[in-house]
Amino acid sequence: MEFTAKQISDFLSGEIEGDPGLKVNTISKIEEAQPGSLTFLANPAYAQFIYNTGASIVLVNKDFKPEKPLNNTLIRVDNAYQALARLLELYQQNMPQKKGISSMASIADSVKMGDDLYVGEFVVIGENVVIEDQVKIYPQCHIADNVIIKTGSTLYPGVRIYENCIIGKNCTIHSGAVIGADGFGFAPQSDNNYMKVAQIGNVILEDNVEIGANTTIDRATMGSTIIRKGVKLDNLIQVAHNVTIGENTVIAAQSGIAGSSKVGKNCMIGGQVGISGHISVGDDVKIAAQSGLSSNIKDGKIIMGSPAFDHDKYIKAYIHFRNFEKLIKRIDDLEKELKDLKDK
Amino acid sequence: MEFTAKQISDFLSGEIEGDPGLKVNTISKIEEAQPGSLTFLANPAYAQFIYNTGASIVLVNKDFKPEKPLNNTLIRVDNAYQALARLLELYQQNMPQKKGISSMASIADSVKMGDDLYVGEFVVIGENVVIEDQVKIYPQCHIADNVIIKTGSTLYPGVRIYENCIIGKNCTIHSGAVIGADGFGFAPQSDNNYMKVAQIGNVILEDNVEIGANTTIDRATMGSTIIRKGVKLDNLIQVAHNVTIGENTVIAAQSGIAGSSKVGKNCMIGGQVGISGHISVGDDVKIAAQSGLSSNIKDGKIIMGSPAFDHDKYIKAYIHFRNFEKLIKRIDDLEKELKDLKDK
Amino acid sequence: MEFTAKQISDFLSGEIEGDPGLKVNTISKIEEAQPGSLTFLANPAYAQFIYNTGASIVLVNKDFKPEKPLNNTLIRVDNAYQALARLLELYQQNMPQKKGISSMASIADSVKMGDDLYVGEFVVIGENVVIEDQVKIYPQCHIADNVIIKTGSTLYPGVRIYENCIIGKNCTIHSGAVIGADGFGFAPQSDNNYMKVAQIGNVILEDNVEIGANTTIDRATMGSTIIRKGVKLDNLIQVAHNVTIGENTVIAAQSGIAGSSKVGKNCMIGGQVGISGHISVGDDVKIAAQSGLSSNIKDGKIIMGSPAFDHDKYIKAYIHFRNFEKLIKRIDDLEKELKDLKDK
Repeated sequence: MEFTAKQISDFLSGEIEGDPGLKVNTISKIEEAQPGSLTFLANPAYAQFIYNTGASIVLVNKDFKPEKPLNNTLIRVDNAYQALARLLELYQQNMPQKKGISSMASIADSVKMGDDLYVGEFVVIGENVVIEDQVKIYPQCHIADNVIIKTGSTLYPGVRIYENCIIGKNCTIHSGAVIGADGFGFAPQSDNNYMKVAQIGNVILEDNVEIGANTTIDRATMGSTIIRKGVKLDNLIQVAHNVTIGENTVIAAQSGIAGSSKVGKNCMIGGQVGISGHISVGDDVKIAAQSGLSSNIKDGKIIMGSPAFDHDKYIKAYIHFRNFEKLIKRIDDLEKELKDLKDK
Repeated sequence: MEFTAKQISDFLSGEIEGDPGLKVNTISKIEEAQPGSLTFLANPAYAQFIYNTGASIVLVNKDFKPEKPLNNTLIRVDNAYQALARLLELYQQNMPQKKGISSMASIADSVKMGDDLYVGEFVVIGENVVIEDQVKIYPQCHIADNVIIKTGSTLYPGVRIYENCIIGKNCTIHSGAVIGADGFGFAPQSDNNYMKVAQIGNVILEDNVEIGANTTIDRATMGSTIIRKGVKLDNLIQVAHNVTIGENTVIAAQSGIAGSSKVGKNCMIGGQVGISGHISVGDDVKIAAQSGLSSNIKDGKIIMGSPAFDHDKYIKAYIHFRNFEKLIKRIDDLEKELKDLKDK
Repeated sequence: MEFTAKQISDFLSGEIEGDPGLKVNTISKIEEAQPGSLTFLANPAYAQFIYNTGASIVLVNKDFKPEKPLNNTLIRVDNAYQALARLLELYQQNMPQKKGISSMASIADSVKMGDDLYVGEFVVIGENVVIEDQVKIYPQCHIADNVIIKTGSTLYPGVRIYENCIIGKNCTIHSGAVIGADGFGFAPQSDNNYMKVAQIGNVILEDNVEIGANTTIDRATMGSTIIRKGVKLDNLIQVAHNVTIGENTVIAAQSGIAGSSKVGKNCMIGGQVGISGHISVGDDVKIAAQSGLSSNIKDGKIIMGSPAFDHDKYIKAYIHFRNFEKLIKRIDDLEKELKDLKDK
């Protein structure tokens, strides 16, 4: 694929500064870009690179003012990062797409299959499953009995969906993710043994959810574990039974949410965060990486620490913690001075 | 499936208050239950919901005293949560069960197969494996050479068992779990390279062990990594080479135990806990979520923090940490007052 | 397999003290070893066991001086741990090796296959893949289009390599690892939704890299996520898009590195460590388990805490934190004494 600056600028409704006929065939990072590639400048921290980048074309924000003369052709757009995202999507859509149903898949007779599907080799689809149109199921996935997968969703190789779960429209689930394994529920017995509590609920992913590689979302004991529309979960995340995660909440890798907790909408949760069971996290909450939550959090809070509290207060307290040695010295001095004073 | 209050009460040796002929066909959470469903009340925090629940039948503890009149039929039992667990199990046992050996599995001729098995599609079973009676191996599992899987165990889709490992009776292993990958052992070389130390040991799961989705348990360098009977491991847990976990210990998601450490019996370990290598954790120890252990812990301790120490002491210290700003103010004031006094 | 003390000593260029004709057939830990087995003593903490071990032969360092008489035959070597590693490797190399290409694998016609390969059952290899000589691909792996796997690498059951990734020579990748899933990149929209940013880059593993079970390494947005030669990653690690990890760096289980960060060479990173995005970690850095990094770290630093700072300073500060109660008492006393003094 090769495009001219004019074709790209027209697609993005941008303005060209330079040669409209200049051609590029790939997209690169600004610090690595070679002639023949397009790059972008969105984060001001990378502005230094624009003066030396080898890129033929650079997407920049409309208000970008170069401090030195530039050799590249610029395309000015309202939002360079969003424009880049649109180009990357276009680039990917032009890649060859997987299609058709492999004769090496095992699909139960009772499955209802939509149109325009991809089902790869060694996929297993159980009884009474519904696969809607334009779904892509890559090789070696397992879709258990009674699962529903709605229009336009993609499951990468080796995804496992346990029985009765529902996957919304346009969801993306990466390799190794496990949706619907048993919740971790055991009733203690008098002899220190545990009796397993059967988990008869399911998992519901609403539309436009993305699930990272090797992330696990457990089925509810009864009812549903629910991931609301637009939620984005990174890799290796644990979501326990009966959890609900609100619309458009984004969670970074290796975080975990324990049983029956509810997380609000539009939250941003850092990596390796732990949320205890049976608590409620409000809407628009931001949680710093590695924080731990053990009690309810109100809407809009920004928190840090384990257990977590106000982010700015944590940062200040931690500065004192780092300087603990100096603090001890001050107290030692105070004690000494006071003693001297009393001894006078 | 439909049951009357009387049938359920008889099964649980309970006492009915209300209509013995009332029928239910599902089990629901108290806050979501609709007519036609049975629910339960065990945790007093949920007592408020009993007055408005739509459930036809509610399991309650014998000593439950309603504060307002109830419209539901009650079944009083010694322990409502355990009674629920028994009903959920009954419900699940009445679901259709997977049976038979798929013609699309690859099973070596030397495998010893028991009776009443389920082996799903695209399963691979290596040389000299022993599969005892009533074992269920869901699709796409891999059982390497010389593995033994004892009576009544279940492996969900995509479980991997490396060679020579032993799985006890009535174990449950969820999708994506990896049992017996190489321990992480490397001998440093003079040039900063590392030489891999071959890992020739195995993993032994004793009876009634449950392993969560995508959990990893590494084989021993020599000898065995051992998970004692009744241990329950949640999802995404790491157990390194040569670790031993004692009977009936329960570990929440995303915790990790480094090489050669020994954890005692009847411990309760929270999520995202880290246990260093070559240490010993006693029996009946409780560890708060996100704690980190770097030295031996005696029987019965309750600990928190990273590095972890006494739980109550940690909670108190952390309150002072949260209020560090006020403490600094007190020291500032002391210094000022002392100076004033000396200047007088 | 059975070897005499003389055969083993010759192989290791060691010196025998005892019976050169003594035979052993296995390798065991010193505290578990039985007659007929060889063991080793490298860590002085285990020296106590040598006086009671059942092992027939013990590998020891040249300078080992027993405090009591020994019944075993000793083989003295320059470095007992390295000698053990060589023996374990020899032991493993003598185990039966997997060979041949299964007729139950699905291999695209366009794949270039080297010599002396193992490709197990239900493996899928996509279009234009290159598999060099002596590569072992265990059952149920998925190798997407345009991947290159170089000479001598081993993929255990259920590894997933997404399209365009490159695996170097002599790499080992354990079950469930996912190489090349989409980076976690989303452009916020005005309505709180997120637009997925297509990830068109790849992952490059250089030579002699080891990747643990269920570890995930995301593809770059543009360009490459790069794991340099000799890097060893334990289980359940997360490596985000556009990260670079330098030569011979070793990372313990459940650690995570966020997008675009660069980690230097010869680093040692403990378990459950979190490294924020867009930061730089120098060479020869050591990071204690559970630490969190949110800013650049210079070469050679040893750090701890979340956020992490100097290790020794952290240890001291944490001791004061543990004794916070006593510190508060000292300040209470100071205030009281000062008040008494002023009231006089």
